[in-house]
Amino acid sequence: MGICNIKLTICYDGSSYHGWQVQPGQKTIQGQIQEAIEQLTGCEVKVNGASRTDAGVSALGQVANIFIDTPIPVENIAKALTQKLPDDIAVTEAVQIDNDFDAISSVKSKLYRYSIYTGQNRPVLQIRHCWHRHGKLGVKAMDDAAKILVGKHDFKSFAGAADTRESSVRTILLCDVSSKDEWIYIDVEADGFLYNMVRNIVGTLVEVGRGRWQVKKVAEILAATDRRAAGPIAPAAGLCLMWIKYA
Amino acid sequence: MGICNIKLTICYDGSSYHGWQVQPGQKTIQGQIQEAIEQLTGCEVKVNGASRTDAGVSALGQVANIFIDTPIPVENIAKALTQKLPDDIAVTEAVQIDNDFDAISSVKSKLYRYSIYTGQNRPVLQIRHCWHRHGKLGVKAMDDAAKILVGKHDFKSFAGAADTRESSVRTILLCDVSSKDEWIYIDVEADGFLYNMVRNIVGTLVEVGRGRWQVKKVAEILAATDRRAAGPIAPAAGLCLMWIKYA
Repeated sequence: MGICNIKLTICYDGSSYHGWQVQPGQKTIQGQIQEAIEQLTGCEVKVNGASRTDAGVSALGQVANIFIDTPIPVENIAKALTQKLPDDIAVTEAVQIDNDFDAISSVKSKLYRYSIYTGQNRPVLQIRHCWHRHGKLGVKAMDDAAKILVGKHDFKSFAGAADTRESSVRTILLCDVSSKDEWIYIDVEADGFLYNMVRNIVGTLVEVGRGRWQVKKVAEILAATDRRAAGPIAPAAGLCLMWIKYA
Repeated sequence: MGICNIKLTICYDGSSYHGWQVQPGQKTIQGQIQEAIEQLTGCEVKVNGASRTDAGVSALGQVANIFIDTPIPVENIAKALTQKLPDDIAVTEAVQIDNDFDAISSVKSKLYRYSIYTGQNRPVLQIRHCWHRHGKLGVKAMDDAAKILVGKHDFKSFAGAADTRESSVRTILLCDVSSKDEWIYIDVEADGFLYNMVRNIVGTLVEVGRGRWQVKKVAEILAATDRRAAGPIAPAAGLCLMWIKYA
């Protein structure tokens, strides 16, 4: 057999976990998957995840890769791992891939969806996966404001204080605000994201949607390259990593 | 003010609770609501719920009544209680009602929905509210079988062993099996339900849907008035109390 590079596609409800990344004494998605792999194969491997999602953030298309030497046929790995995982985590695909594939550095783009429920009654069955914010929001204005963010910009105004990456320049390929019944969805596709970037964008667009800020204010916030210029951060529960595109 | 009878409409995600009914040392929906009422009003009251839903069962339209003497205007009670409740429970309506209204004995009918996900990948974001059962089911056959159950029958074959009620005769007003994409929904409306009745019906209909039993077998099961004749019980997570009708 020898060592193979396996690309995993992973879904999870993040509401019961302290985020993706292994942390001592905490239940994390990466930790659960590494444990499942060890149970299944006897191998201690590092699961190299594309996105370090925060506590409470979910994913329908997280991607990771592992280097592993196992006699288990690759086509059986997804199902076998899912059986070892808790109910709120699943590996939906496992494929062998070139050794130079790296789930983090090979990314072309990712899409996050943020869900807001604007109805009056608490949506108890979806509460783990949305921001319940009662009150009408101007979807058209939010979408107009979202369009200002599309393109290559310095997104420093939307980066969490904990972000220590050198450059805060990223390219947003798509930023759409849509609605269905009392739900609002904010989809953001970019070649990369700064820490808390989507949640800070959402918090800003909501200020536009509720009429506190005009659409053009978002251009000023972007130009300020200062976190204090943007709106408050939106709660983690509304965020979901939908998919990751590779070359 | 004096003592008023207040009718409450309640929603909850049951996945984190040991069912509706207060049990010593367990977290229950009834217990959480009674605590919230005590925090809000200082009154220790019994919340008289229409349905004693089991552990893991959810509700979008549970109904309960309380007798209470409080200066809080009834139109503020739902919102105020919801603020005191955990995120996965909400009181969506509170109205004053005649003193002879009893949430249990005044019921005309209730509707339960059971949700099955038949796709291959574990639906991580809905896993708390469905039965993930991979594999195609014959929806038409299930619906034909469901229709056999409509009407006034002795449903003893579909009653859990723990059911100790004298009569097992109930009237099913509606029993529909529908599908959308990879989801199957089984809706059952009846004037009353035996213990585990919907979950036993679902387990039986699934045996029909997978082709193990013919449609006509359901008539035999009904006639047997023997729990051993019916199919296995379906998991609690798929069940949700949708609404309760009163005169």
